[in-house]
Amino acid sequence: MRAVDIIIKKRDGGALTREEISFFVSGVTEGTWPEYQASSLLMAIVLRGMTPQETAWLTDAMVKSGIRVDLSRIPGIKVDKHSTGGVGDKTSLILAPVAAACGLPVPMMSGRGLGHTGGTLDKLEAIPGFSVRLSLDEMLRALEKTGCAMIGQTDQIAPADRKLYALRDVTGTIESIPLISASIMSKKIAEGIDALVLDVKTGSGAFMKTEADSRRLAESLVAIGNASGVKTQALITDMDAPLGRAVGNSLEVIECIEAMRGQGPSDLMEVTMALTVPLLVLGRVAGTPAEARRLAQKAIDSGAALDKFRQIVETQGGDPRVVDDVSRLPSVKQRHLVQATRNGYVSRMDAELIGRASVALGAGRDRVDDSVDPAVGILVNAKPGSKVSAGETVLEVIYRDKGKLEPALDLIKRAIVIKDKPPPHRPLIVGEVR
Amino acid sequence: MRAVDIIIKKRDGGALTREEISFFVSGVTEGTWPEYQASSLLMAIVLRGMTPQETAWLTDAMVKSGIRVDLSRIPGIKVDKHSTGGVGDKTSLILAPVAAACGLPVPMMSGRGLGHTGGTLDKLEAIPGFSVRLSLDEMLRALEKTGCAMIGQTDQIAPADRKLYALRDVTGTIESIPLISASIMSKKIAEGIDALVLDVKTGSGAFMKTEADSRRLAESLVAIGNASGVKTQALITDMDAPLGRAVGNSLEVIECIEAMRGQGPSDLMEVTMALTVPLLVLGRVAGTPAEARRLAQKAIDSGAALDKFRQIVETQGGDPRVVDDVSRLPSVKQRHLVQATRNGYVSRMDAELIGRASVALGAGRDRVDDSVDPAVGILVNAKPGSKVSAGETVLEVIYRDKGKLEPALDLIKRAIVIKDKPPPHRPLIVGEVR
Repeated sequence: MRAVDIIIKKRDGGALTREEISFFVSGVTEGTWPEYQASSLLMAIVLRGMTPQETAWLTDAMVKSGIRVDLSRIPGIKVDKHSTGGVGDKTSLILAPVAAACGLPVPMMSGRGLGHTGGTLDKLEAIPGFSVRLSLDEMLRALEKTGCAMIGQTDQIAPADRKLYALRDVTGTIESIPLISASIMSKKIAEGIDALVLDVKTGSGAFMKTEADSRRLAESLVAIGNASGVKTQALITDMDAPLGRAVGNSLEVIECIEAMRGQGPSDLMEVTMALTVPLLVLGRVAGTPAEARRLAQKAIDSGAALDKFRQIVETQGGDPRVVDDVSRLPSVKQRHLVQATRNGYVSRMDAELIGRASVALGAGRDRVDDSVDPAVGILVNAKPGSKVSAGETVLEVIYRDKGKLEPALDLIKRAIVIKDKPPPHRPLIVGEVR
Repeated sequence: MRAVDIIIKKRDGGALTREEISFFVSGVTEGTWPEYQASSLLMAIVLRGMTPQETAWLTDAMVKSGIRVDLSRIPGIKVDKHSTGGVGDKTSLILAPVAAACGLPVPMMSGRGLGHTGGTLDKLEAIPGFSVRLSLDEMLRALEKTGCAMIGQTDQIAPADRKLYALRDVTGTIESIPLISASIMSKKIAEGIDALVLDVKTGSGAFMKTEADSRRLAESLVAIGNASGVKTQALITDMDAPLGRAVGNSLEVIECIEAMRGQGPSDLMEVTMALTVPLLVLGRVAGTPAEARRLAQKAIDSGAALDKFRQIVETQGGDPRVVDDVSRLPSVKQRHLVQATRNGYVSRMDAELIGRASVALGAGRDRVDDSVDPAVGILVNAKPGSKVSAGETVLEVIYRDKGKLEPALDLIKRAIVIKDKPPPHRPLIVGEVR
């Protein structure tokens, strides 16, 4: 087999064999395929596509580039949830303790924020002492103790994906449903979970801007998961405006703690519940969606979810006192109020621009090696649909560095649109793929 | 400017600016664009194409990666001819002396054979002592002395093309009319010539297998040449069967010498004349095609062309006695006769398979660093359309190594088709682009 023949086959629109795909993935992992051949094939895949069968083989080869974690010593159906990324998208920090409190083992492996989207690991690390860098053995012990572990991917999980992603990032080959699907699903399958609920975002703040693209991605992800023995369902949810009120790491942890006290904003609670319900059903702790919803609500109302979160924080080295005293989280005093320039309704609050403003403040990163400031961010007072009067505060900007405030405000002003009439209703739960 | 943004623009079907194309070409030449980004952009160009304007800018940037030779000290209109490559395609060795004998300065820069196609430099090097590696200064002196120099490209000519071609060769990005056009024309423009006639081959032995593709390539080449001040015309000529009788380096030199004695095969003479006529008109040594044809024929009939060839050989260090005594050319004794298996007409003699058979014998190369055997090759006795009887010799295989004969014969047997009826007439000159 020659690399150039495989490239030409894909360039001319052919379907690659399982052997050709394995040769490529192992060649990239082991460094025997030069990067210039790998990037040429990646561009051909972006422009020519892959069949569902090719995508499944690609995912499988990427899983096999590392280990598939053995979670068999943990009893029960092991579940995880994955989001394609959004702004203010903090559902994992609520869903994982709720599911664990309902008796499901949740070995959750998450990522960091990049570009305008936030990341679960960055949010958890806002909690003083919290470590997301657990070894697999430490993860298993944490799982046995609390029923939940929230960690970053270890080096043994799909190493091919790390190499391919780094190459795709600099060669204009990110935007491809087969490549995105294989990247996401190889890591999830390698985690060793039994069931997975995916939150595929759609709208301005999502990677996929249109519902049609989001649905195609969701279908691709669900097909791969189910084909490899992981029971997988996906929701397509709106990410045209930030989810909840808080954007920024400490601020989002505070909002999650409030949510587990039953005081979360309605949009955040609606999406979190919509994702938790199928997870509890797939995990067989509930027989029906209605029963799952009752169980999850009870975990919140009884304080069991917040207790579980406290245990998780403590088990992973974090300060559990933050749960009852959020002033222990990193914070800054400086606030700038952004006010409505006229009477009317908040018609739009562009999620991507708000996300970019949050990055400009230091809450996120443009490059994988940038550090993040846990304290800064944005608090939304008036969500899309809200009636506002001129001079009323639409959102608060929490900043550390005056020099970073101005660029953030420029983005925020472009993000907010106020009109005479309220905007048409956008459903939060746009669709479902199972 | 960021490489990845340029890649994404082309990937999404956009047209690049002159500055973006220059940034790419200089980045590749100077090594500041990593090869993995260059190959990703090349694949995007293969699949998304380039506008004529982009192709012209690409060509210009490649010319400017090196020097554009200054031929102003040579009086007259400097002309060259370029073929996209064929089997038995030896017209340059006749055309150049004929044009020089007619008073045109011919600074010809040619290439080597690769794959199933032969190369002018390999043919010339079959002549003992002949050097194609002249410096630019030596080329100018040769031009002043004989009116013709036949050399290889120097390192100063379009260095970007060498780097890009090497990368394209291993990344499946050869097959692109804009990239092929820019590669060919950047080298021709950098030579410093005033006029150019292109022979764009079409058929099984050609790089472009269909007339439509050949015409698209011809149109692209002619547009670039004329836009950059080189008066350019193209002929589209048939390369479905080998041109002339001889395939192999010494054998082709012998055929050219015979041709300059007025004893060339009719197909070879027809294509050579068809290319020479526009060259003489563009070079203004003839006012009309009819006058050009008379002049060229006179150069052959008078012996002036053969005299010119003798001078060229001597000036470039070769043994001029080969012209009058072809036994001084490298040769081998071993011959294998391939006979007609039945009565009928030679219906087909596949040029690509014959070319590959010639490579199998050692006359050509599969890789750029392979050496070639000047003595071996194939002599065609019965061309397509010829009536043959069972047992009659269709072609002779001249071989050195018995071990190389069998693989060559396998290819030859697949190349020859004998049928009851003569094949339909295929015109040699398929079209013209000016």
